Amino acid sequence: MNVLVYGAGQLAQMMQLAALPLGIKVQAVDVGNNQVVDAISKTVSSLTLQQAIEQADVLTAEFEHVPEDLLAQATESGKLKPSQGAILVGADRVREKHLLTQLNIPNCEYSIVDDVNQLPNAVDLLGEQLVIKASRDGYDGYGQWRLADRSELADLQHELGALDLKKVPLVVEKMTRFDRELSLIGARNQQGQIEFYPLAENLHHQGQLHLSVAPAPKISETLQAAAESDFTKLVEALDYVGVMAVEFFQCGEQLLVNEIAPRVHNSGHWSQCGAVASQFENHIRAVCGLPLLSGKALQPSAMINVIGYEESADTLRELPNAQLHWYGKTARVKRKMGHINVTASSYNALAERLEVIAQGLPKDTFPVLGEAISAVLKDLV
Amino acid sequence: MNVLVYGAGQLAQMMQLAALPLGIKVQAVDVGNNQVVDAISKTVSSLTLQQAIEQADVLTAEFEHVPEDLLAQATESGKLKPSQGAILVGADRVREKHLLTQLNIPNCEYSIVDDVNQLPNAVDLLGEQLVIKASRDGYDGYGQWRLADRSELADLQHELGALDLKKVPLVVEKMTRFDRELSLIGARNQQGQIEFYPLAENLHHQGQLHLSVAPAPKISETLQAAAESDFTKLVEALDYVGVMAVEFFQCGEQLLVNEIAPRVHNSGHWSQCGAVASQFENHIRAVCGLPLLSGKALQPSAMINVIGYEESADTLRELPNAQLHWYGKTARVKRKMGHINVTASSYNALAERLEVIAQGLPKDTFPVLGEAISAVLKDLV
Repeated sequence: MNVLVYGAGQLAQMMQLAALPLGIKVQAVDVGNNQVVDAISKTVSSLTLQQAIEQADVLTAEFEHVPEDLLAQATESGKLKPSQGAILVGADRVREKHLLTQLNIPNCEYSIVDDVNQLPNAVDLLGEQLVIKASRDGYDGYGQWRLADRSELADLQHELGALDLKKVPLVVEKMTRFDRELSLIGARNQQGQIEFYPLAENLHHQGQLHLSVAPAPKISETLQAAAESDFTKLVEALDYVGVMAVEFFQCGEQLLVNEIAPRVHNSGHWSQCGAVASQFENHIRAVCGLPLLSGKALQPSAMINVIGYEESADTLRELPNAQLHWYGKTARVKRKMGHINVTASSYNALAERLEVIAQGLPKDTFPVLGEAISAVLKDLV
Repeated sequence: MNVLVYGAGQLAQMMQLAALPLGIKVQAVDVGNNQVVDAISKTVSSLTLQQAIEQADVLTAEFEHVPEDLLAQATESGKLKPSQGAILVGADRVREKHLLTQLNIPNCEYSIVDDVNQLPNAVDLLGEQLVIKASRDGYDGYGQWRLADRSELADLQHELGALDLKKVPLVVEKMTRFDRELSLIGARNQQGQIEFYPLAENLHHQGQLHLSVAPAPKISETLQAAAESDFTKLVEALDYVGVMAVEFFQCGEQLLVNEIAPRVHNSGHWSQCGAVASQFENHIRAVCGLPLLSGKALQPSAMINVIGYEESADTLRELPNAQLHWYGKTARVKRKMGHINVTASSYNALAERLEVIAQGLPKDTFPVLGEAISAVLKDLV
């Protein structure tokens, strides 16, 4: 069995690692140059993209920003999972918001703006504290603006006036006070079987995920069920096949959907150590029509993102109780270089292990790790 | 960091899969032709063996039957872990028995025989029910004979008379009545840190492992501690670095060492699904001088060996709750083609899952699986 993944980064690499024991061959497409590559060794295949599509049993994607011509070609083969429509919901915040509204799934109040002159109306409607997001190509915190009060409106209108909002409209959201950020990862296969991982708690810094803890501490059964219900509505409406992630804001006992990611997700990397099966194995299983494995967490686990780290993996490998996943990429500011999974028999033991690991990491590369650990585990230690 | 593994079979392959996320590069040596290969893709490297040894930081082995000239060359580099002496204890039953005797570790009563005319003496000493094993190159049940009573002695002497017993002596053991077969897998790194997995219960058929269950049901703390104590004596005496397996016969509350395997072991494959870290990751960590991860079992798990299976992996992938590890080899009678890991929240749930899987497998390829499952889990279901 052959799977071709659009995108040749770490997510494709981890899919390939999960598929190998199943006897499933994964190749990846570098969407920058349309080359077919081995996602682990980066060896370029002699196959053209069209040949690789023909040889593949299944096409899938590691991210939602696949160029439209490639998505169209993939769709034409009849082998793309999840579908183009599902991938575009993740790539386009306008589609995402419309789907949430259509399915009655709670999310932050919003307004779609395709002309800067509509911004004052949005302020009237939503209040003067706003988060403004480009509807497309906004990835990892790029393409976002904030309005703190009405006095900043003119400057913001001026700045946004330089953009082609007819082509890429803005989603203007009411700034929402929330208790914490959570995400739910689940998988749905072709036969409609769904498996969930427990909600994870996520700590971001400058728009990037720094720490996830799963299961998120102190989640009521009702909250987990509400998240699963939202997820199920979404995947069934999209006839979704594969792993999907839904990011939530928790406000008391209410969940607001913040974002849908039609792919394996950074906040699910902990599943490589603390769950029966990883999100990568379940994604491969889902798109290949195989039975899914349980997403059950076996013990409290956490994931630390290694962002912009310029050293080699040597020091990270030496950390105690740390399962390193090193992506083998060239260092760059804000680039995800790897992640560290940690698991322990209790949240207290997990917190202790995380603190030891944090002390072994350079503060300038992991500026908020200490606070993130305290924030997530504050009630438990 | 580079690791070179002697042997390019499934064990090297699984070491390579475990090392990849750590940013550690594994290559393997096909000891049949001294070629350096990628253990996953089987691509032959342009490096000579000598060049690969020079480039490697660590040399290790996936099995104990490495040709002596290769072991000598590896030793000369100063990079071999475990050491040649430790590997030879696994490759030579005479060395193994001497070590056990020297360390006062209980094992089956035995006599070393290098002339068939010594056999009657051995019968006088040990009784007329004997297991006779070639001291070297006996692998997976080959090179073993049994004496059921004294009347068979003349025939056996005749058969064994054809062998060069001066070169390869026999270890003649008293046939031991035991309750069950257990094994302990553990890892010791260069710094002397030791981590244990729980004892596994193993079911064999025609000298090959068919099923392991871990933790073995109904193991007292005393028994686990006794196994760990034997293991510790052995690894400290050998200054052992890497994963080692010790096979035991359980006779009531006593353990007799049956065999020492200086390597990752088939009865530890369950650790890929039911433990914090797999034996493959801990072996790589041990030989690279990295901190070991916990060998704790997170829930009851089992492994079914796929032996001599002539079909493709397609049917096996479809089995519910089954984590397939397919080695990608050409089918041959008695050849290990892959294994299936299963984990569940209780032994009862594990037994149910195993039974469903057994029903989905062809009886002629898995002749004793049903009975093996019942035998291991008989008291629990």
